Amino acid sequence: MEPTKKTKVKRAPKRGFYDRETICKILDTHFICQMAFAHEGYPIVIPTIYGRDGDYIYVHGATVSRMLLELEKGLPISLNVTQTDGIVLARSAFHHSLNYHSVTVFGEALLVTGEDERYNALKVISDQIIPDRWEEVRLPNKKEMKATKILKIPITEASAKIRTGPPLDDKPDYELPIWAGVIPLNTIVGEPIPDPVLDKNIPLSESVKKFVKND
Amino acid sequence: MEPTKKTKVKRAPKRGFYDRETICKILDTHFICQMAFAHEGYPIVIPTIYGRDGDYIYVHGATVSRMLLELEKGLPISLNVTQTDGIVLARSAFHHSLNYHSVTVFGEALLVTGEDERYNALKVISDQIIPDRWEEVRLPNKKEMKATKILKIPITEASAKIRTGPPLDDKPDYELPIWAGVIPLNTIVGEPIPDPVLDKNIPLSESVKKFVKND
Repeated sequence: MEPTKKTKVKRAPKRGFYDRETICKILDTHFICQMAFAHEGYPIVIPTIYGRDGDYIYVHGATVSRMLLELEKGLPISLNVTQTDGIVLARSAFHHSLNYHSVTVFGEALLVTGEDERYNALKVISDQIIPDRWEEVRLPNKKEMKATKILKIPITEASAKIRTGPPLDDKPDYELPIWAGVIPLNTIVGEPIPDPVLDKNIPLSESVKKFVKND
Repeated sequence: MEPTKKTKVKRAPKRGFYDRETICKILDTHFICQMAFAHEGYPIVIPTIYGRDGDYIYVHGATVSRMLLELEKGLPISLNVTQTDGIVLARSAFHHSLNYHSVTVFGEALLVTGEDERYNALKVISDQIIPDRWEEVRLPNKKEMKATKILKIPITEASAKIRTGPPLDDKPDYELPIWAGVIPLNTIVGEPIPDPVLDKNIPLSESVKKFVKND
């Protein structure tokens, strides 16, 4: 998509990407974003889970949430997904950096009202975290659906920012006898811990097995 | 500190903490936050590194950054630090959750002008990521100091939110033969990767050795 005044990466423009593929790839491999909006004149930033389906990002929350009541009015929001991949150690303090990949989306949150789309959005969010878990669990009943509000944000104004690779120092600093490089940071999936009250005869479900194996 | 209208955790109030110790412990064991503010009428959320020193959170950026120019006017900001510790799998879709620990701070960013405090703030940010790295590197020169803007946010209005432990299902659902539990997520530090152009005789520095060992 075209970079806009809001999405154009100004600092280190070489790290900016605007193609749908790069943006969606980052969105699709994460499930937590930080969403910002103004609330009674103050900026608020909250971490929340999301799911992407086509051109929309879905988020959900409690119907009684004052925040969602505010947001469903179609307030402008901005959301960011960031994964830190490594600490970049340069020879100079100034050129220390991080390797990361990040997406920022700007838009207006729309309240999802159709019951089918609402139901599908919950499946999308669930699948974003653990694919196929939805098929294994007791699905939302009417009361739970009523207690849940769903918003969607169109992915029309978005950019990705990515840094990879070794440190970049000023030329004279390369002569300094200082260790420089990257310390990788990785998120790993641990061994699933059964609920202490779980019947010992209930095996690990297929979705969990697959999730743990794939990661 | 006292919960305020902005910091009081409304959803799942048992997960809210307002004591300085809990808040600072979370701040001190991370180094990336998502900072939100209004810019030309739109909410913006950006990931940025930070360091805590006493009652202040320091962030830095390029002097020419339009965002920082805006922020130094003393705009209200909100920042959030979140670490996801696990995926909580309940028997019902509705009670799926995450284990996490999170801090949100509200305040006004102040421009740091004194040269000593500016220099110290950069050391604080550096130490927050890798303790003692500051002592090993080529420190900022006048030109680099001039190119750097530093803001501080007082930690006066803040709250932590923490979820731990197994899923909590509705009573009848405990009878269902569905695997339930927690999938832990951990961030691990990988083996340091030397800059490809690093002189092979330069050993790993002490700060990096300690960082990799401690984590």
